[in-house]
Amino acid sequence: MMARFLIPALLCACAVANAAAPGGGQQQVIGKAGAQAASKGPAAYFSGEVEVGPLLAAGGSSKFSAAQVTFPAGARSAWHTHPAGQYLVVTAGSGWTQEWGGKPVAIRAGDVVWCPPGVKHWHGATRTTGMSHVAMSGTQDGKNVDWMEKVADADYPR
Amino acid sequence: MMARFLIPALLCACAVANAAAPGGGQQQVIGKAGAQAASKGPAAYFSGEVEVGPLLAAGGSSKFSAAQVTFPAGARSAWHTHPAGQYLVVTAGSGWTQEWGGKPVAIRAGDVVWCPPGVKHWHGATRTTGMSHVAMSGTQDGKNVDWMEKVADADYPR
Repeated sequence: MMARFLIPALLCACAVANAAAPGGGQQQVIGKAGAQAASKGPAAYFSGEVEVGPLLAAGGSSKFSAAQVTFPAGARSAWHTHPAGQYLVVTAGSGWTQEWGGKPVAIRAGDVVWCPPGVKHWHGATRTTGMSHVAMSGTQDGKNVDWMEKVADADYPR
Repeated sequence: MMARFLIPALLCACAVANAAAPGGGQQQVIGKAGAQAASKGPAAYFSGEVEVGPLLAAGGSSKFSAAQVTFPAGARSAWHTHPAGQYLVVTAGSGWTQEWGGKPVAIRAGDVVWCPPGVKHWHGATRTTGMSHVAMSGTQDGKNVDWMEKVADADYPR
């Protein structure tokens, strides 16, 4: 199964610094935590009650979108790839990331992950601890993820 | 005054997922908090005792480096620009970011900032509260920042 899912256009209620800056007319864009409503990660692409809180849309000079993604214990993404890669900044708790064919690697608050384009992987909480990360996803042709099969319980680390 | 300062090559003691992944031979790169020694931000470019903890080097498919940068109360960067832009993920506390000619904008844990290439700005703690962020800096021609004058005490928000 391969499906395309783009986190919705992330209507950007961003604060913009009030400035006349020497940056070619560009300004800083600030995504404020809590300024936009979070949504539940779709059941087709996530196991468990995952919360996705948009922070920044991609656009202009910024090729990455940003969202706070929170996984309670036992929750995880499906297997997927990112056409233009993704950075994760783990901001709370501890969880897992795993590449296809590889071993799960523990990640916890303070860790940062670079997932290159096309690498099939999943990430999420452990069975007993929640995990939250800011996901910064590169966008290519308007798409930032290709979703695949869910992570079977038998394959979810104990 | 304009000076160039590149956070040193960030010798990358990164954990690499043990995998044979369908990503063109690429693998995830994981920067573990605390795996590399932090250093003090140079006094020419920072006011106060700023700690810079490297997490990820730029390289391969990843065009951004990542570092945890911690500002105790009163500490801040000098004015600077980024030739390829920078994302900030604020992970603790509250502080300021300000563009040249603009007003200071409060940032706090959970916020994310995109600073476009060439925008002159500074960021740091408030006078009374520390702030820590992961800085993800784009690299262009081996350079991720151009440093300028320090933020004068009279210009530092009260």
